[in-house]
Amino acid sequence: METRTEESEVKKLRNLIDEVNIAMLVTKHEDHLHSRPMATSDVDDEGNIWFFTNEFSGKIDQLEKDPHVLVSYANPANNTYVSVRGIASLITDKSKLQELYTPVLKAWFPEGLDDPKLALLKVTTEQAEYWDGSSNKMVTFFNILKAVVTGEKYDGGNHGKINLD
Amino acid sequence: METRTEESEVKKLRNLIDEVNIAMLVTKHEDHLHSRPMATSDVDDEGNIWFFTNEFSGKIDQLEKDPHVLVSYANPANNTYVSVRGIASLITDKSKLQELYTPVLKAWFPEGLDDPKLALLKVTTEQAEYWDGSSNKMVTFFNILKAVVTGEKYDGGNHGKINLD
Repeated sequence: METRTEESEVKKLRNLIDEVNIAMLVTKHEDHLHSRPMATSDVDDEGNIWFFTNEFSGKIDQLEKDPHVLVSYANPANNTYVSVRGIASLITDKSKLQELYTPVLKAWFPEGLDDPKLALLKVTTEQAEYWDGSSNKMVTFFNILKAVVTGEKYDGGNHGKINLD
Repeated sequence: METRTEESEVKKLRNLIDEVNIAMLVTKHEDHLHSRPMATSDVDDEGNIWFFTNEFSGKIDQLEKDPHVLVSYANPANNTYVSVRGIASLITDKSKLQELYTPVLKAWFPEGLDDPKLALLKVTTEQAEYWDGSSNKMVTFFNILKAVVTGEKYDGGNHGKINLD
C-alpha cells in the first residue's frame, strides 16, 4: 500500500515536471546561491531527476564542494510550481548515458555519445513539493517524500499558506 | 553614462519580471535549500525586488539566520529565465507598506494595511542574470549588476553556454 502511494506520488511529480521540462537548478557556492536553467532529461521511478550536463562546467565544481541542490519548475500559465530538494551526483556510466541519450543533444555535444564531456547530473530527491494555483489560490500543496529511499517521514505540518505569507 | 546603463538594465529586469510576476524565492536553512512561490510586488529603481509577506512566517526565521537568497523567474512559454541573487531584509515601515499596498492583498491579509502581520520582504539585488531562449537556444545571457550600490564589478567571463553544459 505504501509502495502504491509512492508510485502515484512519483507519477504526479513526473506529470508536473513534464509540463514544464526546463528546471532552475540552484546550487550553493560558499555563501552565495546560483541558479541556471536546465533541460530535464528524465524523472526515474524513484522520483530522482536526471539532466545531461558538461562534466567540466563550473557548476560541477560547486556540486563537488556542496551537493545539496534545489530544482524548481515554474509554470506561470497554469500557476503550478514544483520545488525538489536533493543531492546531486555526476554520473558518467556509459550505459546510463545511452539509455537517456537523444539526438537533440547534438546541438550542445556535436560528437553525441562519444563526446568526452557528456555526463549526467543525477539529483537524488529527498523531498518534493508542489503548489497548484489553478485549483485554489496556491494554498494547496503536497509533499512527495521518498520514504522508502531516504527513510525520512512525511511531515505535512511545516507549511500553511504558501504564496504571500 | 554609467547611470544610464544601469537604468536600462533595471528597466530590462523589470520588464522580464513583469511578464512572470510569480518568483521562486530560495532561502538557505542549515544545509538545506528551500523555495516557495511569491507574488512580486515591485522592482524599484535600484533593481531591488519587493514582496509582501507575513512577518511571522517560517521563512522570516530562516532569513534572519542567513539573508542570502535567490529569486528566480521562469517563463517556459517564451523560454525566458531570470535569476537574481541578493540579500533579504524585513521592512515594516508603514509608509513603504502604504506605497506598495493594493486591495488584492486582502485575500491574505483581511485587515489590509492594519493587519499586524503585514510586512515587506526586500531583496537587495547583488546580481541579476537572464537567459533568453526565444532568440538563440538559451545561450544569450546578460549580467545586470548594481555597480553603484554594491561596488562590485561586472564579470562577464563566468558564463558561457548556460542550459545544457
